[in-house]
Amino acid sequence: MPLRVTIWNEHVHERRDPSVGRLYPDGMHGAIAAGLRRELGDRATVRVATLEEPEHGLTDEVLAETDVLTWWGHAAHEKVADDVVDRVQARVLDGMGILILHSSHYSKIFKRLMGTTCALRWRQDRGGEREVIWTVNPGHPIAAGVPHPIVIEHQEMYGEFFDVPPPDELVFVSSFAGGEVFRSGMCYTRGAGRLFYFGPGDQEFPVYHQPEVQRVIANAVVWCAGAARGNDLPSDRGQSPNTKRDWYLQPA
Amino acid sequence: MPLRVTIWNEHVHERRDPSVGRLYPDGMHGAIAAGLRRELGDRATVRVATLEEPEHGLTDEVLAETDVLTWWGHAAHEKVADDVVDRVQARVLDGMGILILHSSHYSKIFKRLMGTTCALRWRQDRGGEREVIWTVNPGHPIAAGVPHPIVIEHQEMYGEFFDVPPPDELVFVSSFAGGEVFRSGMCYTRGAGRLFYFGPGDQEFPVYHQPEVQRVIANAVVWCAGAARGNDLPSDRGQSPNTKRDWYLQPA
Amino acid sequence: MPLRVTIWNEHVHERRDPSVGRLYPDGMHGAIAAGLRRELGDRATVRVATLEEPEHGLTDEVLAETDVLTWWGHAAHEKVADDVVDRVQARVLDGMGILILHSSHYSKIFKRLMGTTCALRWRQDRGGEREVIWTVNPGHPIAAGVPHPIVIEHQEMYGEFFDVPPPDELVFVSSFAGGEVFRSGMCYTRGAGRLFYFGPGDQEFPVYHQPEVQRVIANAVVWCAGAARGNDLPSDRGQSPNTKRDWYLQPA
Amino acid sequence: MPLRVTIWNEHVHERRDPSVGRLYPDGMHGAIAAGLRRELGDRATVRVATLEEPEHGLTDEVLAETDVLTWWGHAAHEKVADDVVDRVQARVLDGMGILILHSSHYSKIFKRLMGTTCALRWRQDRGGEREVIWTVNPGHPIAAGVPHPIVIEHQEMYGEFFDVPPPDELVFVSSFAGGEVFRSGMCYTRGAGRLFYFGPGDQEFPVYHQPEVQRVIANAVVWCAGAARGNDLPSDRGQSPNTKRDWYLQPA
Repeated sequence: MPLRVTIWNEHVHERRDPSVGRLYPDGMHGAIAAGLRRELGDRATVRVATLEEPEHGLTDEVLAETDVLTWWGHAAHEKVADDVVDRVQARVLDGMGILILHSSHYSKIFKRLMGTTCALRWRQDRGGEREVIWTVNPGHPIAAGVPHPIVIEHQEMYGEFFDVPPPDELVFVSSFAGGEVFRSGMCYTRGAGRLFYFGPGDQEFPVYHQPEVQRVIANAVVWCAGAARGNDLPSDRGQSPNTKRDWYLQPA
Repeated sequence: MPLRVTIWNEHVHERRDPSVGRLYPDGMHGAIAAGLRRELGDRATVRVATLEEPEHGLTDEVLAETDVLTWWGHAAHEKVADDVVDRVQARVLDGMGILILHSSHYSKIFKRLMGTTCALRWRQDRGGEREVIWTVNPGHPIAAGVPHPIVIEHQEMYGEFFDVPPPDELVFVSSFAGGEVFRSGMCYTRGAGRLFYFGPGDQEFPVYHQPEVQRVIANAVVWCAGAARGNDLPSDRGQSPNTKRDWYLQPA
Repeated sequence: MPLRVTIWNEHVHERRDPSVGRLYPDGMHGAIAAGLRRELGDRATVRVATLEEPEHGLTDEVLAETDVLTWWGHAAHEKVADDVVDRVQARVLDGMGILILHSSHYSKIFKRLMGTTCALRWRQDRGGEREVIWTVNPGHPIAAGVPHPIVIEHQEMYGEFFDVPPPDELVFVSSFAGGEVFRSGMCYTRGAGRLFYFGPGDQEFPVYHQPEVQRVIANAVVWCAGAARGNDLPSDRGQSPNTKRDWYLQPA
Repeated sequence: MPLRVTIWNEHVHERRDPSVGRLYPDGMHGAIAAGLRRELGDRATVRVATLEEPEHGLTDEVLAETDVLTWWGHAAHEKVADDVVDRVQARVLDGMGILILHSSHYSKIFKRLMGTTCALRWRQDRGGEREVIWTVNPGHPIAAGVPHPIVIEHQEMYGEFFDVPPPDELVFVSSFAGGEVFRSGMCYTRGAGRLFYFGPGDQEFPVYHQPEVQRVIANAVVWCAGAARGNDLPSDRGQSPNTKRDWYLQPA
């Protein structure tokens, strides 16, 4: 069965800012979807959801049919409803993968799953600056087939200290022309679900059209989907193997 | 300067349940404080705060003067005000240590810092059962001077799967008479602060009077206090070392 | 292309000890191979290599055609030639997976890859004792479809402290009837290769015939094979992206 | 009792290469010792050992009286005797701290403790290039009081992929003028001992005279000394807490 991917985009900049609209006439979600289709072909089915849809397009039904959710937000983090965030969090802990892109580091869902401020250093000059992305874990599946380094000529600078928990696996580290560094590819486990944060992707630059970036996103989607269905028992009660006394599961 | 420790206790069971009141006539906080005083002597000053105090005894002033906060809650997690939780979380990320004890795994502050459900298996039979605590990181300062194993004759069973993120450091693993296992000593970094979760400590048993448990708690307080004051600049703006272009810090 | 698995077994006990020979008339490698065939079918091709073969059956050619090597040794660790250990280590760092089983914790190759003594507590009484294996990472692919807990009625006790580096991922923790605990499923990355240590499997008990154990081994083989081909450049020289000055790769 | 630090230096370049001799007339060990004395004062006693001494100055007696060993080697890694490496490794696993500096990434002892090739990218042009060192774990004691970033104007480039196991804690990440990045401050636990790798320090530049670098080295020495004395029993035999059956410890 193909992976079921839902691409979520707040879809604000593309309609509001002409410079962004020119780069992404089909929305950033369109570019991300095109990359996934090229990289994964029949191995994935892709749907799109945006902020302005009812329940932001993330109903229980959609989430139940989603193996991996990708998230892009920037201008409208606060407009995302808390109950939708609750629902996405619960689904991640239940095993759905989630890919957090660029400025979504400040989204409600990412902050919720990290427990930290998720603040960072940043600089957005006209024209951006060169980001060079190095692989520090060459056997990691998310780095498969990726050049070493990936060079993105024009990017917004994101730099350390990035206030997130130490990742379970660090895959990419970037440098910027200014000399800053950034942990730009990080893996986390939360409950039975997997999360990957990937730094590149400002709306002012054509980053999501770049094939190497699309390759990383496709690899990350496959990795995020690689969690097993949690193997705990569905029941809320059982017996100890040694003494046959009852135990209970706490409700989540 | 001595470590400044604040012991927080919801202080409900001791006053409501006669069996608990007999075990802890001075409250569980009293037993924890006595253990810290015996183990750390002049190296620490200890104060107590409880749920029923204004702002639960955790004002900005108290938190500003606290290097390590210990937390015990069980019956009244939901009565802890969200703005106090916000304040404690911010202070942890800013560098205060926090020690989460036993059933506080289901407290608002712990769930907030973990991002997961924090659910677990449990069993509370009359009389409890034996917990055997093994050190899996013998050089860790929290295990200093601790017997291998620590045996607690009567305890509530807490078992896996414990839904928390993989810890940065795993120090203790327990077995229970029923055959269950539990990651009962875990270290986390959150922002500039350190967190330790320690499993033992049910209100129905005299666990906090046991010297080995008091030793672990004292060690953990010292470890939690060992974070450096964050070395980032306090300013919200600066220049890149290479290109002298400005960068900004995001507000937390 | 199917996974290419090589099952290595020292194959000493089965021929020397009648009790072991009765349990494993086709060698422990035979039971492990049967389990892999049942679980993976066409997804894997399996070959066997043993200590007494020239170069222990692990020539450059065999290793070059091996995606995952499983290792079982106990009585003859010292008879494994150092140059074969060198070769296996190099191949792991180059991306081959390796599954270390039970008493192979004291093999040359495991000690080489860990850098520690790999010593542990143990007890082998007649009849063994019950081991109960709990999953502490329910979304991990190695735990897929595995009961929680797995119960092995008769096993040798292996207990903490197990002197290995903290694992990159902890998947299973066991308890034993005596009250001991053991980190019985651990993932490591070494170079571009993946390593999994799995505790169960003493020669005196029919552990490798148990379907749940076979399932874990099959899952682990697939996980170990999941490393990407290292994405670094094969050349030993290149230019910095920013200044176009030359860099060099050190020879391994 | 003050920390007992032994500074080991191969002490080859300083005597052979006039450019190095001018930078380090008292040897690199002299500059490192001066930094430790300034930073730690009475809190540490410092002694020096070099390659040309009998047993390289690292007898059983010296190691028994050493809490933390710092290591600098480059030109003569192969001249270090294997039995001295065995002895240092055993002492680290027993709880001694070790600080691995710069080109010592290719020393026998570091490779032994890592289990990998420890290869990396490098470039040594006349005049070197700027290294900018960022803290990615601001509460870590090794980063205490360290500027963010540390700028070293002239350094040899060390870049990723650095073939070491994923660290237990990542403290510093560097960028170089060429755009490369490097995990330049990494913490490891091995047995009961702690290891820190710190990247800066080429012999051609006055890096060890730089106060910020001396501060990091002093912090790292204190952190490496912070391991508890292993809390396992010294005996090689005992009884299970539950069944009172005997267990054994394997010899290291």
